Amino acid sequence: MSVVAPFGFEAAGVSAGIKKPGEKDLAVVAAAGPVAAAGIFTRNRSAAAPVLLSRHHLRDHQARAIVLNSGCANAGTGSAGEKAALAMAQATAEGLGCRVPDVLVASTGPIGPPLPIDSICNAIPDAIGALNDQSGTEAATAIMTTDTVNKEATSVGSGYVIGGMAKGAAMVRPDMATMLAVLTTDAVLSWQALETMLRRVGDKTFNCLNIDGCPSTNDSVFLLASGAAGVRPDLEEFEQRLHDVCLDLALQMARDGEMTDRVITVNVRGAVNDAIAREIGRTMTDSDLVRASFYGGDPNWGRLLAAAGAGPFPVNPNAMTVSYNGVEVARNSVQLDYARNALLATLRQGDFSVDVEVGTGEGQATIYACDLTPGYVTFNSEPS
Amino acid sequence: MSVVAPFGFEAAGVSAGIKKPGEKDLAVVAAAGPVAAAGIFTRNRSAAAPVLLSRHHLRDHQARAIVLNSGCANAGTGSAGEKAALAMAQATAEGLGCRVPDVLVASTGPIGPPLPIDSICNAIPDAIGALNDQSGTEAATAIMTTDTVNKEATSVGSGYVIGGMAKGAAMVRPDMATMLAVLTTDAVLSWQALETMLRRVGDKTFNCLNIDGCPSTNDSVFLLASGAAGVRPDLEEFEQRLHDVCLDLALQMARDGEMTDRVITVNVRGAVNDAIAREIGRTMTDSDLVRASFYGGDPNWGRLLAAAGAGPFPVNPNAMTVSYNGVEVARNSVQLDYARNALLATLRQGDFSVDVEVGTGEGQATIYACDLTPGYVTFNSEPS
Repeated sequence: MSVVAPFGFEAAGVSAGIKKPGEKDLAVVAAAGPVAAAGIFTRNRSAAAPVLLSRHHLRDHQARAIVLNSGCANAGTGSAGEKAALAMAQATAEGLGCRVPDVLVASTGPIGPPLPIDSICNAIPDAIGALNDQSGTEAATAIMTTDTVNKEATSVGSGYVIGGMAKGAAMVRPDMATMLAVLTTDAVLSWQALETMLRRVGDKTFNCLNIDGCPSTNDSVFLLASGAAGVRPDLEEFEQRLHDVCLDLALQMARDGEMTDRVITVNVRGAVNDAIAREIGRTMTDSDLVRASFYGGDPNWGRLLAAAGAGPFPVNPNAMTVSYNGVEVARNSVQLDYARNALLATLRQGDFSVDVEVGTGEGQATIYACDLTPGYVTFNSEPS
Repeated sequence: MSVVAPFGFEAAGVSAGIKKPGEKDLAVVAAAGPVAAAGIFTRNRSAAAPVLLSRHHLRDHQARAIVLNSGCANAGTGSAGEKAALAMAQATAEGLGCRVPDVLVASTGPIGPPLPIDSICNAIPDAIGALNDQSGTEAATAIMTTDTVNKEATSVGSGYVIGGMAKGAAMVRPDMATMLAVLTTDAVLSWQALETMLRRVGDKTFNCLNIDGCPSTNDSVFLLASGAAGVRPDLEEFEQRLHDVCLDLALQMARDGEMTDRVITVNVRGAVNDAIAREIGRTMTDSDLVRASFYGGDPNWGRLLAAAGAGPFPVNPNAMTVSYNGVEVARNSVQLDYARNALLATLRQGDFSVDVEVGTGEGQATIYACDLTPGYVTFNSEPS
């Protein structure tokens, strides 16, 4: 059901001819009028035109609709790209009869080629005509790039619903960049509450996903609250449910990571604070040698030690304790005797977990990583 | 000829039984007495015990000898590792009849396992007994890990010689970490001059090498000046020759990068300053997607744009101009029409160059990178 599960939202997914003929590549998600909205975006300094425009349009903390295309990132497109992103918002606003700043824009696909803006503007009226409260899956399908499955999630709260759709995972492919997610709810919430919770939840879910260590130019996550359920939710419960939906979508992305075989859950504990725990976890899972060892099911804690120390964050090189699937292989940075063959057998089976205690404080974080596979390299090497 | 090319140095390479029986794994390079010395080391916060000890022993800016082993990094070995590094220095000092702080120590190999210090201390007298001014290649061979060839270089100046040996390239293998280099000269130079020049030259050569983006726990580069030629060199000429020797060794390492196919020379221009140009170049070549495109010979400038923006350095996302082998493919971040098939044909042939103008200043740097290959992943995935 995804983004149309909450009351007050309609969606559509149509073909604008950006991808192969007949493939859906244009999605619109719309509320009945302007609603409270929040967004989190890539921190890449080469952020794409739609990211810059959406960030700008969110300055009044409200939105009526989001228009998203796949098949082209509209990144590395200069001032023509900026005009194209604005034209997408204008055409959508015209079709819906709303203000241009109430339309948010997102794009995903290859970086570099110009956005086929005429095809998109021609198709936007079709998409608006197709809007209804059943077409969540069509919208989720239209934003796919190299995804092999569409990604949707919902959570039913006390008198309200949260829905979401997402695509991709980090910058997982030739140029088919980007994680996009649209989250909707019919609960009654202020933009301040949405923004605070989305930022906090995003840091623990989408921002803890590390497929290939390559941050995209286009990552965008939007959260819109229609208020159509007429219920002011318990904020703690709402945030937990929002977390569940986001984590569900993030794990769907990890599972669908291009040419990857496993999802490895890396729990970092004992960092100076939670934010530094997350950065240490990301630095470790950025390492090609660490992710190659994940592929081989190799409990190679020495690479974690080396990778953790390579970042700009305080670690104590003599205080690292590491377990794979609960089996301690090193304590205080000294290798232990452990039942190696038994551990190798469990690591060969698929997903596994790694616990890393870094010994400098109380901060903790969980990172969801993929392995680095020869298939990923081959897949991403060929000129398009 | 390597490290024994300058007057005043002897070397030896012997087998201590750390690697397979009969394989050389212990090297000593020694001067006739304490000489001016400088070193540059890994910035990894998990730096290994020998790095910490050598950094400490260089506080008086002099050294008599360097003892190096392959087959074990003595990293992730806790306080036992610290004692082992010191024991290597002590045994060498005893054999040479010099002060312990005049001995520098370096180790390379797997991270985690304990150093077989008894075998090493037993073999150190053999190595000292074998010291002579012809055995540079034996020493260069004894420090190899997954290197397929030993790496030596010399430069003959006006009345003096510079010699060098090196191994590895970044952290290129299962655990077989580390770049080590020993540089010697018979020119008369103060430690201050050595230190200044080594730091400056290291930044332009060894620190511009990016094989796999994984900084080792053990990287060490040493420079010793015996003064035995009795010549005070022209400093500008000496620094240029030191640069040539270091670049020669760095390129030998790049060429020998584990399971890599190509060396890609990435010239970054127009950064705020040279140091930031180097960091932007490193950030770009850290990216798996960039290095996979190098493997495929794909002029995928969009990935360079995305990778450059992912770092913490100022880039202008609208001002990037990129050429592959001199063919401009993007100007001011907008893709150009170019003779794509002709360019793909030249990129398929092997090594190539990439010029990236980032448009924020006058700083420049050259990075020597390798491609990311499926073979590298497979090679680094298997449990040892």
